[in-house]
Amino acid sequence: MSRIDGRTPEQLRPVTIERAWSKHAEGSVLVSFGDTKVFCTASFTEGVPRWRKGSGEGWVTAEYSMLPRATNTRGDRESVRGKIGGRTHEISRLIGRSLRAVIDYKALGENTIVLDCDVLQADGGTRTAAITGAYVALADAIAWGQAKKHIKHGRTPLTGTVSAVSVGIVDGTPLLDLCYEEDVRADTDMNVVCTGDGRFVEVQGTAEAAPFDREELNALLDLATGGCADLTALQVDALAKTLGE
Amino acid sequence: MSRIDGRTPEQLRPVTIERAWSKHAEGSVLVSFGDTKVFCTASFTEGVPRWRKGSGEGWVTAEYSMLPRATNTRGDRESVRGKIGGRTHEISRLIGRSLRAVIDYKALGENTIVLDCDVLQADGGTRTAAITGAYVALADAIAWGQAKKHIKHGRTPLTGTVSAVSVGIVDGTPLLDLCYEEDVRADTDMNVVCTGDGRFVEVQGTAEAAPFDREELNALLDLATGGCADLTALQVDALAKTLGE
Amino acid sequence: MSRIDGRTPEQLRPVTIERAWSKHAEGSVLVSFGDTKVFCTASFTEGVPRWRKGSGEGWVTAEYSMLPRATNTRGDRESVRGKIGGRTHEISRLIGRSLRAVIDYKALGENTIVLDCDVLQADGGTRTAAITGAYVALADAIAWGQAKKHIKHGRTPLTGTVSAVSVGIVDGTPLLDLCYEEDVRADTDMNVVCTGDGRFVEVQGTAEAAPFDREELNALLDLATGGCADLTALQVDALAKTLGE
Amino acid sequence: MSRIDGRTPEQLRPVTIERAWSKHAEGSVLVSFGDTKVFCTASFTEGVPRWRKGSGEGWVTAEYSMLPRATNTRGDRESVRGKIGGRTHEISRLIGRSLRAVIDYKALGENTIVLDCDVLQADGGTRTAAITGAYVALADAIAWGQAKKHIKHGRTPLTGTVSAVSVGIVDGTPLLDLCYEEDVRADTDMNVVCTGDGRFVEVQGTAEAAPFDREELNALLDLATGGCADLTALQVDALAKTLGE
Amino acid sequence: MSRIDGRTPEQLRPVTIERAWSKHAEGSVLVSFGDTKVFCTASFTEGVPRWRKGSGEGWVTAEYSMLPRATNTRGDRESVRGKIGGRTHEISRLIGRSLRAVIDYKALGENTIVLDCDVLQADGGTRTAAITGAYVALADAIAWGQAKKHIKHGRTPLTGTVSAVSVGIVDGTPLLDLCYEEDVRADTDMNVVCTGDGRFVEVQGTAEAAPFDREELNALLDLATGGCADLTALQVDALAKTLGE
Amino acid sequence: MSRIDGRTPEQLRPVTIERAWSKHAEGSVLVSFGDTKVFCTASFTEGVPRWRKGSGEGWVTAEYSMLPRATNTRGDRESVRGKIGGRTHEISRLIGRSLRAVIDYKALGENTIVLDCDVLQADGGTRTAAITGAYVALADAIAWGQAKKHIKHGRTPLTGTVSAVSVGIVDGTPLLDLCYEEDVRADTDMNVVCTGDGRFVEVQGTAEAAPFDREELNALLDLATGGCADLTALQVDALAKTLGE
Repeated sequence: MSRIDGRTPEQLRPVTIERAWSKHAEGSVLVSFGDTKVFCTASFTEGVPRWRKGSGEGWVTAEYSMLPRATNTRGDRESVRGKIGGRTHEISRLIGRSLRAVIDYKALGENTIVLDCDVLQADGGTRTAAITGAYVALADAIAWGQAKKHIKHGRTPLTGTVSAVSVGIVDGTPLLDLCYEEDVRADTDMNVVCTGDGRFVEVQGTAEAAPFDREELNALLDLATGGCADLTALQVDALAKTLGE
Repeated sequence: MSRIDGRTPEQLRPVTIERAWSKHAEGSVLVSFGDTKVFCTASFTEGVPRWRKGSGEGWVTAEYSMLPRATNTRGDRESVRGKIGGRTHEISRLIGRSLRAVIDYKALGENTIVLDCDVLQADGGTRTAAITGAYVALADAIAWGQAKKHIKHGRTPLTGTVSAVSVGIVDGTPLLDLCYEEDVRADTDMNVVCTGDGRFVEVQGTAEAAPFDREELNALLDLATGGCADLTALQVDALAKTLGE
Repeated sequence: MSRIDGRTPEQLRPVTIERAWSKHAEGSVLVSFGDTKVFCTASFTEGVPRWRKGSGEGWVTAEYSMLPRATNTRGDRESVRGKIGGRTHEISRLIGRSLRAVIDYKALGENTIVLDCDVLQADGGTRTAAITGAYVALADAIAWGQAKKHIKHGRTPLTGTVSAVSVGIVDGTPLLDLCYEEDVRADTDMNVVCTGDGRFVEVQGTAEAAPFDREELNALLDLATGGCADLTALQVDALAKTLGE
Repeated sequence: MSRIDGRTPEQLRPVTIERAWSKHAEGSVLVSFGDTKVFCTASFTEGVPRWRKGSGEGWVTAEYSMLPRATNTRGDRESVRGKIGGRTHEISRLIGRSLRAVIDYKALGENTIVLDCDVLQADGGTRTAAITGAYVALADAIAWGQAKKHIKHGRTPLTGTVSAVSVGIVDGTPLLDLCYEEDVRADTDMNVVCTGDGRFVEVQGTAEAAPFDREELNALLDLATGGCADLTALQVDALAKTLGE
Repeated sequence: MSRIDGRTPEQLRPVTIERAWSKHAEGSVLVSFGDTKVFCTASFTEGVPRWRKGSGEGWVTAEYSMLPRATNTRGDRESVRGKIGGRTHEISRLIGRSLRAVIDYKALGENTIVLDCDVLQADGGTRTAAITGAYVALADAIAWGQAKKHIKHGRTPLTGTVSAVSVGIVDGTPLLDLCYEEDVRADTDMNVVCTGDGRFVEVQGTAEAAPFDREELNALLDLATGGCADLTALQVDALAKTLGE
Repeated sequence: MSRIDGRTPEQLRPVTIERAWSKHAEGSVLVSFGDTKVFCTASFTEGVPRWRKGSGEGWVTAEYSMLPRATNTRGDRESVRGKIGGRTHEISRLIGRSLRAVIDYKALGENTIVLDCDVLQADGGTRTAAITGAYVALADAIAWGQAKKHIKHGRTPLTGTVSAVSVGIVDGTPLLDLCYEEDVRADTDMNVVCTGDGRFVEVQGTAEAAPFDREELNALLDLATGGCADLTALQVDALAKTLGE
């Protein structure tokens, strides 16, 4: 079976990770997974929320949002509706948890990093692109905090790297990194977040149509761990470049 | 290793499912998983939301909420704060998706069933208790709709049964159906929703502390499918009783 | 004239007051007036709101809410609508004022007790059942505060007991403790809150259809004081039991 | 005992009722009870809310609000806070119920009248001044609707007149029409709404300090019915004038 | 060309400025520009918002609102809708900026003055009437603060006077101080805020229909500066009166 | 005097207008005025808001927003705060009015175009960049609507072009197109919106520090009309390119 865009089942879409996309943020990345484009900024501030003061530990959190016309038909702005939808809440929480999984709060010290992930264009996989890009922005913000001596601990606050990818079963075939057209046709949809050493941070599988069995679950997990390994390599490459070159 | 409450690792807490707990709702269940108590009502109404009118298909949705003092310290009411928190949104969506996985919309016809799951007392596993109890309330509401001839299709709208359980790794040991004390100490926390035939509807695993590997994931999935099988049997038993006896 | 449920005009519905219904709250009561069931919790916390700090005086407040399917047709959740309705506000304020009428703030000291009254099933008289049950939960929370030495004053913070009942004129006959069917047919509807010694804390009479005259008002007040006396006795009985028996 | 402003216990403050205070509204009144000034407009529109369409019956509702600096210290605007407080809700509902008590919905036909009562200056008794003034604005709006033939029924939609006054016990003495200084010192505070023929529409008594007994209640009701009779006469006088003179 | 109300193009409507309209506010003015009536109160409080504490400087801000029936058809209350509209925000900000243009924060000291401008009746030019009236209320509140020694600086905090007027091009003719009927027919609408010495604080011109050229703009500015000079004289007159006469 | 970035007083920053920046929107532009970058999408939908149905006329509206980290320090998301700030409202309204000034509603027919202007990076002049870029996106959306035959009228709905620029007086010198550093130091700040033929659509001048006189106003208007003429040329150039080249 050939995919809509000619990929093999275990192939990622073209992925780009552009750093320093904003002149203001301490870390900023424009990440694209094919036509999905997410702008991720990491804002570093000294101090922590009130409930964490005096703990000697830092905090990392995330907010996800879609621009109104990121999708094929325009959606209402959540600011205009006056409330945040369940999907937005859910993804913001997922991104935050995923990044905190590789943070050593003690090493970060009483500093806060907020990741903003704004989807400029959506074509499936916005949450996984957001996590993958936000990690790179986070790494840059931490480097900034170390350079500015706001992070005083000798140990790096990053305990590893983290990336994410979607997988799903379309017409009976497990596929990696679904684009929107594949996503709407998928029977099962799973988002997997892995650390660079191949362990799981999040596994979220949902039967969109028919329930899935253990064998299908295993096939999806195999695909996802492979995809995350590829993304990890791309993150490492992106961070290896000297900014300004 | 013995658990806090003396259970074995693969043992559920005492589970009770009381039907017809409300005189108003078409289906109503008080479900308890140990000290976790959730009141689930299923409200059947003819007609569907506007976006589904004329489709010939029904709709099932869910809302989850905690009473302010369901927990050890009182939480603010979301109605007083004027907005629903991310956790509430996330669980409401999970319950809705889980129940829709066993619904045949065509057989339901243009009728809507809303499941309200209000946690009266929380001690871990509120979302899994809610799904397990809500299924029973849903089945009763469907029977009501059939008896009242609002459901006209010959085929039952239920394509199967659904139940849910939490699993987690505590001090290196995979455990079934965590109570609150176990939950806060867990390294990994997973909620699994299964159909009665043992397939997966949702798998949501989160590394609370250290990431987990494939082997740990497999151990947790084994525990969860066993637990769901036990819950399925309890649901079947509860529904086998004639109401009013 | 015989009433719908066979009661005499001056007869209460069967009233039950179950204490210690929650393992978390300092006081908790499931109160029922016939088919009206309200779950009342009293949450005791040290400290007072900012505007009262340093006064040496405590604070007691209440929040009332209906579960969505407490009534015959499902109502929208106020948390989902994003605002609290006027009726909810009005009843929450009434409950708070009624309980504060028997509180000695100085004797309570700088402690706060919040009463949550959540209607699980409604069949008329939810606010009067809530007040009657909340008083018992309040008394338990105060006893807890004394046992834990958070209340240091020798004098008890309770200056009396408080209960409430509805009365109304249906087809020309004054009736005590209206159930829902009677309530919708009533020309006049009155809620009366009394202390245990028979004095009034609140008198709220409303002409639903025709205005009422002084004679009708007197007949209603007579019925209400009798009903409150009966409820006081039931409260005293409930509190006389040792918890755990 | 002489009152703060030299009145006898059963004396109203100077009351003025100025009609046609706005050029836009179908009925508009500036009412003052001493230094309490409330601007009441009655807006007449053809048609009724959706839930009442096709019933052949009209609707009357009210909204009450305080300007931020109506009181001695400035209060936050409810529009800025984004929610309406409990007190505002409660009073808006009271005004609406009070006016509906003298409306014949069938005679009004499918027309809606909204009463807006905005407190320009507060000195106690704002809700009772609002009801008293709003009745006059309502009568003018009804006359307008009849003149414009929007009200087609031969019978007048007004079944009587309605006015309201506050009473309270201050230092042991029952007093009529409390000003702010008396109100804050009152042990018991009661608002009474009467029809022109001396019957009760609403009786709302609250023990602010000590509970009150039946004898005190009777004394307050006597005072209130006298005060409402005086207000009725003032309403009749005001409405007897030809507008534009 | 003769105007609707017989004025010449460069003539203001009858303007009245009544001071001390409220017994509570430190400054209060009922201003009318023809049938447009705005109630302006100035609330003086010691202290400043948190972000300004310790600066030694004061703060002046404003809130504008329309009563629901200030206009020909009733508008929804913003408190009921739960949010403030763009127009209200825009005008509140304009009033605040205009008044701050004549304030010396250092001389005011750490005191705050809030101007509330509530439109009782609207007939065009509500924002310009509000600014013109609010200035007088502000001056009274400052005099109050000086008399009460809350303002300790020897220099007056007022660096000048400020007034505002609307101008527009109707049927090709530039007109001063548009009433509502003129406003809706205007091709261009401009609000101009001037200091007493004839300089500009705000110039806000909008092409409602066709864009306007430089010559038209100049004609409008000429009219506006003349109108503001007239308003300045009226403000000075109003403030020259001794209150209580 | 030399400017911070070496420009002459009457010189724009480098301006770029990239079309077709999104694959979903009917028109989309990334516009930059120096370091200010705004992403403008134009969403074309058949049909108009309810209040305009049956008029045969179309509608154009706009929403402006800043990404949280568009600025030097992170701002709260308006969706998270649950309300839109006054500044956002004000700018959204300005953009909408400016674009409607060049729209022939009849020629547009019953179609709606929504302009979303999201600031990705802010360095002064975000509203003027937004208007300038949104015009180009609007023109592309109209061309799309004509190509798709949704716009049926022979006449083009565009009656001209529109662009905008800021001007201000810094240290006594009138300057064109202020960057953020200049903006904060400006005594007077003015935003001017012009049509391509040099007439004014909006003139919004504000005295930030000292009021400005007529001569200064004239100098600013001269600068602004020159700047808008340059921007018009850039818009025409951008639209002259064939997309896809």
